[in-house]
Amino acid sequence: MSDRQKDLTLYNAHFIDGLAKAGVDSAVISPGSRSTPMAILLAEHPDIKVYIQIDERSAAFFALGLAKASNKPVALLCTSGTAAANYYPAVVEAKNARVPLIVLTSDRPHELRDVGAPQAIDQNQLYGTHVKWSAEMALPDSDENMLRYVRSAAAKSVYLASQAPAGPVHLNFPFREPLIPLYDGIFDGEEFGERNSLLLTEGKRTLPQENIEKLAHFLREKEKGIIVCGELAAEGFKEAVLALAEALGYPILADPLSGLRSGQSSESVVIDSYDAFLRSDQMKKTAAFDVVLRFGAMPVSKALTQYLKTHLNKEHLVIDGGGGWRDPIIASSHMIACDETDFCLKLGHALKKDQLNSAWLTKWIKINELAKAKMKEVQQHEELDEGKLFYQVLQKLPDESSLFVGNSMPIRDLDSFFFAQQKNIHLYANRGANGIDGLVSSALGVAAADSSLYLILGDLSFFHDLNGLLAAKLNGIKMTVIVINNNGGGIFSYLPQSSEPKHFEKLFGTPADLDFVHASKLYGGDYLKVTDMEMLHEAMAKAQEADGLFIIEAVTDREKNVVAHRQLWEKVSQEINEWLVGDDEWS
Amino acid sequence: MSDRQKDLTLYNAHFIDGLAKAGVDSAVISPGSRSTPMAILLAEHPDIKVYIQIDERSAAFFALGLAKASNKPVALLCTSGTAAANYYPAVVEAKNARVPLIVLTSDRPHELRDVGAPQAIDQNQLYGTHVKWSAEMALPDSDENMLRYVRSAAAKSVYLASQAPAGPVHLNFPFREPLIPLYDGIFDGEEFGERNSLLLTEGKRTLPQENIEKLAHFLREKEKGIIVCGELAAEGFKEAVLALAEALGYPILADPLSGLRSGQSSESVVIDSYDAFLRSDQMKKTAAFDVVLRFGAMPVSKALTQYLKTHLNKEHLVIDGGGGWRDPIIASSHMIACDETDFCLKLGHALKKDQLNSAWLTKWIKINELAKAKMKEVQQHEELDEGKLFYQVLQKLPDESSLFVGNSMPIRDLDSFFFAQQKNIHLYANRGANGIDGLVSSALGVAAADSSLYLILGDLSFFHDLNGLLAAKLNGIKMTVIVINNNGGGIFSYLPQSSEPKHFEKLFGTPADLDFVHASKLYGGDYLKVTDMEMLHEAMAKAQEADGLFIIEAVTDREKNVVAHRQLWEKVSQEINEWLVGDDEWS
Repeated sequence: MSDRQKDLTLYNAHFIDGLAKAGVDSAVISPGSRSTPMAILLAEHPDIKVYIQIDERSAAFFALGLAKASNKPVALLCTSGTAAANYYPAVVEAKNARVPLIVLTSDRPHELRDVGAPQAIDQNQLYGTHVKWSAEMALPDSDENMLRYVRSAAAKSVYLASQAPAGPVHLNFPFREPLIPLYDGIFDGEEFGERNSLLLTEGKRTLPQENIEKLAHFLREKEKGIIVCGELAAEGFKEAVLALAEALGYPILADPLSGLRSGQSSESVVIDSYDAFLRSDQMKKTAAFDVVLRFGAMPVSKALTQYLKTHLNKEHLVIDGGGGWRDPIIASSHMIACDETDFCLKLGHALKKDQLNSAWLTKWIKINELAKAKMKEVQQHEELDEGKLFYQVLQKLPDESSLFVGNSMPIRDLDSFFFAQQKNIHLYANRGANGIDGLVSSALGVAAADSSLYLILGDLSFFHDLNGLLAAKLNGIKMTVIVINNNGGGIFSYLPQSSEPKHFEKLFGTPADLDFVHASKLYGGDYLKVTDMEMLHEAMAKAQEADGLFIIEAVTDREKNVVAHRQLWEKVSQEINEWLVGDDEWS
Repeated sequence: MSDRQKDLTLYNAHFIDGLAKAGVDSAVISPGSRSTPMAILLAEHPDIKVYIQIDERSAAFFALGLAKASNKPVALLCTSGTAAANYYPAVVEAKNARVPLIVLTSDRPHELRDVGAPQAIDQNQLYGTHVKWSAEMALPDSDENMLRYVRSAAAKSVYLASQAPAGPVHLNFPFREPLIPLYDGIFDGEEFGERNSLLLTEGKRTLPQENIEKLAHFLREKEKGIIVCGELAAEGFKEAVLALAEALGYPILADPLSGLRSGQSSESVVIDSYDAFLRSDQMKKTAAFDVVLRFGAMPVSKALTQYLKTHLNKEHLVIDGGGGWRDPIIASSHMIACDETDFCLKLGHALKKDQLNSAWLTKWIKINELAKAKMKEVQQHEELDEGKLFYQVLQKLPDESSLFVGNSMPIRDLDSFFFAQQKNIHLYANRGANGIDGLVSSALGVAAADSSLYLILGDLSFFHDLNGLLAAKLNGIKMTVIVINNNGGGIFSYLPQSSEPKHFEKLFGTPADLDFVHASKLYGGDYLKVTDMEMLHEAMAKAQEADGLFIIEAVTDREKNVVAHRQLWEKVSQEINEWLVGDDEWS
């Protein structure tokens, strides 16, 4: 091989082998010319599975979903130019949602930059503050020191992307023509077999025993405490926080994405209907707490946020293994950078179990049951509005299946109607920046790692990432999509904008009049439209037997939906307020 | 109204009125909550037309197209979070293609930033080096000085976006709830009628007469000169450069996007078939020039680039009114920051007309005619390959119509087969970064200003921005799309990657097997599939009568297409080489 080809081949092969040895086993590639050496060598590597998506925006969200589901960094590769700019929305989401991504952009070499050359844009620091690390790589070189450099950069990218808080990193690779590497059997050689992987070990943040004892002492004196759990991916956390809650006698107000609402033994201290009963202003005041322990992202419930804000001057402890500053309500009295599982285990151990049957906890459990019973009663009716659809679909999900939900209304309906249950359902959503973009692709990325995935999202979100569906066909992935088609932006009907009829439909409602049967035909999925509950049940049964993409379009009405939700919350509030009469303060 | 509502209303209204008075007459809005005050007031302003697109990536490309066609800055508005990140590809294209955009992102206020609040990302400097100006705006305030500030910022954004080189600017607006302005009749009040617009005047860069005289003297002694024109939007340039070429006796090698190949009196000195005859190595050497004057972006033709590189040590003058550094082949011997029209007029005047019939120019015209005749002969055949399709479609375009062409193969076919003609056809393409993204939307933006638009693009490009089609329906826009569906990335068959069968189809060819009849049904357009030339002609005739979106899907074959193109270039090269025999150097 020529010197240039040798440089190109060895440099790229060692980078990719470095990624693989550091634990990367998946790459998502979009077609392009400048990225050729890396694309071919990724496809050649025996330990890396390659996925294809033509639209880079969708490709990046696909990688995000795959990284979430596999809990491992996923590599992304594209050509030079605006291709790389299309990754931006998913990169921003990954940074905010703490998902590890290795973003590889290929670039024109230095002599073709800032001179009006084709497909050459400024790719240095392309993602600004939205990546954890961004580096301009050296040109291909097969000098031993440069091969060590490029392997080291591969390992470093995995190391930095994975460390808490996890997130995206960006490496920009300039390549000169010719771009074809000599790939045949390249990874069979001793050259690669003999290279050891660089070991990457991350210690967890832990508190000294002295601080734990002080905290235990402090909490032992507060009967009226609550635990709030948002989305959090920490190993062993679920068991640890349940044990801690039992030891403290505190209820856990568990966001659905915390994972605490599903699986065995989740029902003892887990409060799952707070979004309904905390809408009562009386309840917000009556259930005054002295201390709250917050873990994970801020939950989706606005009622919960307002409840927490009703008691700003109480003790708000925020525990974050990633050392972030999660305090959107400006309430924190103690920021604790500590691994959440470790925190719960050590604190639980220091406390001993003695408060489980506190009157405080008993009241929370009682009121949660009251609210839930009322909601279940209303949702049994067989009309098809969005709340009922959610309730019914959640009942029908098979054990050990996964569910990805869209933003705006679906995540709120999930919060309302996903009651604690024995079935183990893995829940996913893009709550880093809460965008309506990239949801189809993110879900397909999850589905690539987890073959029993359902996606529920609204029509605007589905439209926004229709291109994402192509990945199902190109990579042979099975997924069931339930599109709630209320012809527009459902959430705006709940906001003050809805009282501005002059501009509402054009600027906010934005009906797109899309019939998604055509989308299913374009991308080759099975499709059923449902307009009542019986059809929905039948469609769900058929979807379970399907092999690939299965789209269920549920047609609902924005107006009726708002009315149904409002009636439900009123009924629950009435129930709660009646029960609260004569019970002004909990003790 | 409350103080907060007064602040919100007046601050936003004055900003928007400031934009309108500075000449902005169009805004593209994507639905969202945080952007509510600005969205409603944009819709209320009597001098601003509002377009809606739900997908922000497509919205931004739509604005780009509209700004290109109208030659005025267009405002873009979205909500906070990843919505704003979706603008990135079009922002990058606008910067590189010198298109003025006013990007308005709404944001959470300061107290909700970097604290884990929903839909809050770091939006400061979101577009990095890819905007001309980026500012974090103050919170709404109705103090007179703050109203003057916000009007001034509006005018400044237009001023900076428009100045040569034009480009995008970014203003980030934090808004607190409540978000509904008191809009009714707001712009009818004296408050706005009395406000004058701030006048914005940009002088052009001009050379002192002394430099012009020196240049004229220098050029008068060089008979063997050429003029190369790429894409350039400068008023009066076409007539000025044609006059200069005639005065110098130089041929103009005119890229199709220069606009020089169409309209009256364009055929005298314009060379339109250079991409064909400069493929001959003998021709590249024989037609040795002493000086080249380059205007506008670098042309698309690789043969032309290689020809210029064959004569690197000759005089390469680059004239750019935007003062950019357009020198991808590192050949420039003189960089001239001067308005192109002014340069041509003054230099032409200093030269006087005396060289028009030079032997040098005559040879260029002769060889151009030979090549063109050969190409027309081959392209008359009625089979449907991509070259022939282009040739035939270009023949059928009505006078005064516009054509937007996709990147990769379509722009190259346009270069080959758009011969100089009397008809006035306006040509558009996204050649800032040459992406295959956003083309449907960019074209629809042009179509919003120019109702006789045709778009020709490949299937991968069409897929990449299918979402863009929604804007046709939402905003009632007419456009004819010709999709060349060769089921994959056609350009790769011309590149060295095509000789790597092991990975070719998966990584580069990427066949998506899409039947676009379903896309037309989804977005409500008329549709015809064509598989031969007769069907194409019929479809073109029907498209002319259509009111809205009309999609023609032309099915071609990647393999056959490469063969046909190669055969054509061989025939032209043979013809040229025969003619060149015994004519080693031109004098």
